[in-house]
Amino acid sequence: MANNPQLDANGNLKHLLSIEGLPSDMITAILDTAEPFTEVAEREVKKLPLLRGKSVFNLFFENSTRTRTTFEIAAKRLSADVINLNVSTSSTNKGETLLDTVDNLVAMHADMFVVRHASSGAPHLIAQHLEATRRPNVHVVNAGDGRHAHPTQGLLDMYTIRHYKRDFTRLTVAVVGDILHSRVARSQIHALTTLGVPEVRAIAPKTLLPSDVERLGVRVFHDMREGLKDVDVVMMLRLQNERMTGSLLPSPQEYFKFFGLTEAKLALAKPDAIVLHPGPMNRGVEIDSAVADGVQAVILPQVTFGIAVRMAVMSMLARG
Amino acid sequence: MANNPQLDANGNLKHLLSIEGLPSDMITAILDTAEPFTEVAEREVKKLPLLRGKSVFNLFFENSTRTRTTFEIAAKRLSADVINLNVSTSSTNKGETLLDTVDNLVAMHADMFVVRHASSGAPHLIAQHLEATRRPNVHVVNAGDGRHAHPTQGLLDMYTIRHYKRDFTRLTVAVVGDILHSRVARSQIHALTTLGVPEVRAIAPKTLLPSDVERLGVRVFHDMREGLKDVDVVMMLRLQNERMTGSLLPSPQEYFKFFGLTEAKLALAKPDAIVLHPGPMNRGVEIDSAVADGVQAVILPQVTFGIAVRMAVMSMLARG
Amino acid sequence: MANNPQLDANGNLKHLLSIEGLPSDMITAILDTAEPFTEVAEREVKKLPLLRGKSVFNLFFENSTRTRTTFEIAAKRLSADVINLNVSTSSTNKGETLLDTVDNLVAMHADMFVVRHASSGAPHLIAQHLEATRRPNVHVVNAGDGRHAHPTQGLLDMYTIRHYKRDFTRLTVAVVGDILHSRVARSQIHALTTLGVPEVRAIAPKTLLPSDVERLGVRVFHDMREGLKDVDVVMMLRLQNERMTGSLLPSPQEYFKFFGLTEAKLALAKPDAIVLHPGPMNRGVEIDSAVADGVQAVILPQVTFGIAVRMAVMSMLARG
Repeated sequence: MANNPQLDANGNLKHLLSIEGLPSDMITAILDTAEPFTEVAEREVKKLPLLRGKSVFNLFFENSTRTRTTFEIAAKRLSADVINLNVSTSSTNKGETLLDTVDNLVAMHADMFVVRHASSGAPHLIAQHLEATRRPNVHVVNAGDGRHAHPTQGLLDMYTIRHYKRDFTRLTVAVVGDILHSRVARSQIHALTTLGVPEVRAIAPKTLLPSDVERLGVRVFHDMREGLKDVDVVMMLRLQNERMTGSLLPSPQEYFKFFGLTEAKLALAKPDAIVLHPGPMNRGVEIDSAVADGVQAVILPQVTFGIAVRMAVMSMLARG
Repeated sequence: MANNPQLDANGNLKHLLSIEGLPSDMITAILDTAEPFTEVAEREVKKLPLLRGKSVFNLFFENSTRTRTTFEIAAKRLSADVINLNVSTSSTNKGETLLDTVDNLVAMHADMFVVRHASSGAPHLIAQHLEATRRPNVHVVNAGDGRHAHPTQGLLDMYTIRHYKRDFTRLTVAVVGDILHSRVARSQIHALTTLGVPEVRAIAPKTLLPSDVERLGVRVFHDMREGLKDVDVVMMLRLQNERMTGSLLPSPQEYFKFFGLTEAKLALAKPDAIVLHPGPMNRGVEIDSAVADGVQAVILPQVTFGIAVRMAVMSMLARG
Repeated sequence: MANNPQLDANGNLKHLLSIEGLPSDMITAILDTAEPFTEVAEREVKKLPLLRGKSVFNLFFENSTRTRTTFEIAAKRLSADVINLNVSTSSTNKGETLLDTVDNLVAMHADMFVVRHASSGAPHLIAQHLEATRRPNVHVVNAGDGRHAHPTQGLLDMYTIRHYKRDFTRLTVAVVGDILHSRVARSQIHALTTLGVPEVRAIAPKTLLPSDVERLGVRVFHDMREGLKDVDVVMMLRLQNERMTGSLLPSPQEYFKFFGLTEAKLALAKPDAIVLHPGPMNRGVEIDSAVADGVQAVILPQVTFGIAVRMAVMSMLARG
């Protein structure tokens, strides 16, 4: 595989594995491509023929109806044939390896794999294998791998920020919550710094921060009131249920008290600050309903833009 | 929401939540719209473009492959993009509320929700929420909610009765079985009385009748032989497995003896009486195989008409 | 039902239930029909309108994502509407019989059933029922029934052998492994003898051979080195996990030692011998990775040809 496994020799998008390693102009190209797709969704007939006759496999080794649905809609609106494979209960149970499964689906003339896996690096491993077996026309989209990355989430967040704030180079952005366990946070921070956001803040309790977080180019805050001061964008993270009962945190109530986003805390940000959340929300844990349903929240537009961004990525890969 | 949440300001169908509240002429309009769809099913190419480019979500909070399949076929024959969501094992597990799930799918530009839920009123709640959030182009079809309603079942039963008996105003119709726990029975009784059936009978043991059953406009019988006398239509209900082992009933054998439909009991009805059953049947419990497979049974035509009725409802909603 | 339930009065394919009973010229016709479909898979738009507007039901009473996927892709590339029914968790739980389920789906105007069932004979039973209820336009494809048959697997194996070896009448073919429990083996042996392969060998430990195996027209070997001598084709069988822990076999390691295909054992076959495996493979149990990934293996081409063969069968049934 070449230096950058995500780009082909001509610099076109070949796989989407992580935002880390995507050049700034490629991120911008994806966001630009997504723009017209937001209009398709408003049409009477939400359908384009760009992936007609292509076979897209949703290869989910970890269950996520929500994410699978967004990719399924995006692919169907591009007229692809979509096949959902919940692999946790299938071939791998029969002792087949991940790469044997992939080889089989490639032999069925798969055009694209949307891969979700509990292990970091699984989509990268698949892309590497496709390279090694000389399958330049088969593409991989990472739909979330372990703690590593969730690049379409990061891209739709950038689309949302650009939509509301236009210029990345004048923004202060805070990422708040369980950064340690979040693949979303990693993708977001990489995207923000790549696009030239001058100040990215990480707000979290010490137990929920990776030890090397400052190397990502962020300013660390443990006090939410300090961290939110004068920011333009607040990116909340989901607190996963399995953490809440763990030993890293005292209790959901305690967490909410210190790191839950309330109207009072949000008032410390700029008056026109926007609030993002990747969903599904834990209301009353990381975010108060008054904020989630308030005028500064752009959480549902994120979902809308997410379909357009996924359509953009898929059509760029198929075209590539 | 206006007085009638199911109709828009022009009297067009906006949601299908229950037969209760549907005016007689709307029920008739649905049955009339369904007629030509029965012919589509006989064609070489069973496909119409009426929902092309629309996104229909089968939102099943309660598993029912059978009902989901009927809606999936109906939507696909109308060329919709269909996405199946079995929500019991998904987002709601992650603590997301029902309405957050709906908001998310609306943000993905859903056009229609087919909703199955164990709680009575869930589809109505979703419709109300769509109203409150001003989403006039998103429609809800109730595919069965708790003990409340199963309106497409009621409508297909009416289609079937009209097909074989033409004039509702001369009929005596018996509904037989577990009326207490049946959402189907409620939908049927409302439809029959609305369409002008002069005599609707409820035949059931005392323990399987709601206390207010007579307020629905039915004549109550506890003896099946009396109740079936001279009826034109026998509508059998399914005895749900969980009831059979409960304390409300002595045993399936005992139930069959008193309330199972046998050829001997059916002989008390009019000679040309027809027998309906919503399926799946418990042969030898509520219905004898000789009747289920006999010439008076119209149980399989019900299924056929059910697809046409669902296509009619979906196309009317999409057009509305 | 006529003498041969798989052919109609004009000798056209009506159902595909087993290779046993398929005349040699019908097998050849299926392989010939599959040829152009392999080219469709290479196109930009992998789509033909042959099953447009047809409803294909994947009726899986036994879970098999892999097999279901191959039929789903084949049907979608022929433009059919595909509905997946995992019936193990559905209607049959509610006490409905297999044939009631079928009757219901026929009433929904199903055109084709792809049936997987743990019981031998289930697809045959369904075909018989369709005959008895006079449904000449509804077709059944057996996707694996108990220990009985898996005819599309047998056909794709024949396609593969013909592709690489051209003339069946000059070949020596070995089938190796758990022949006793394998529906694949039965289908393969029938196909090979029908197509005129002069020597078919069965290589297996005594405990994994049916007592009447010689009546199938095979030569039996218990020593793999003897059995592989000078063969043109090696057809490996999968050792099912549930066997490995059973009392019929000492251990996977022991099995590999005697019946696993290694490069050393394969060297006893003809130099240009090809190796087939139905997948998923147990590497290091019935086959060594060096062989599975080696130049003589045609295991992935089998998968590719399998899609074309399933498209051929479906289009012949729909045309019939």
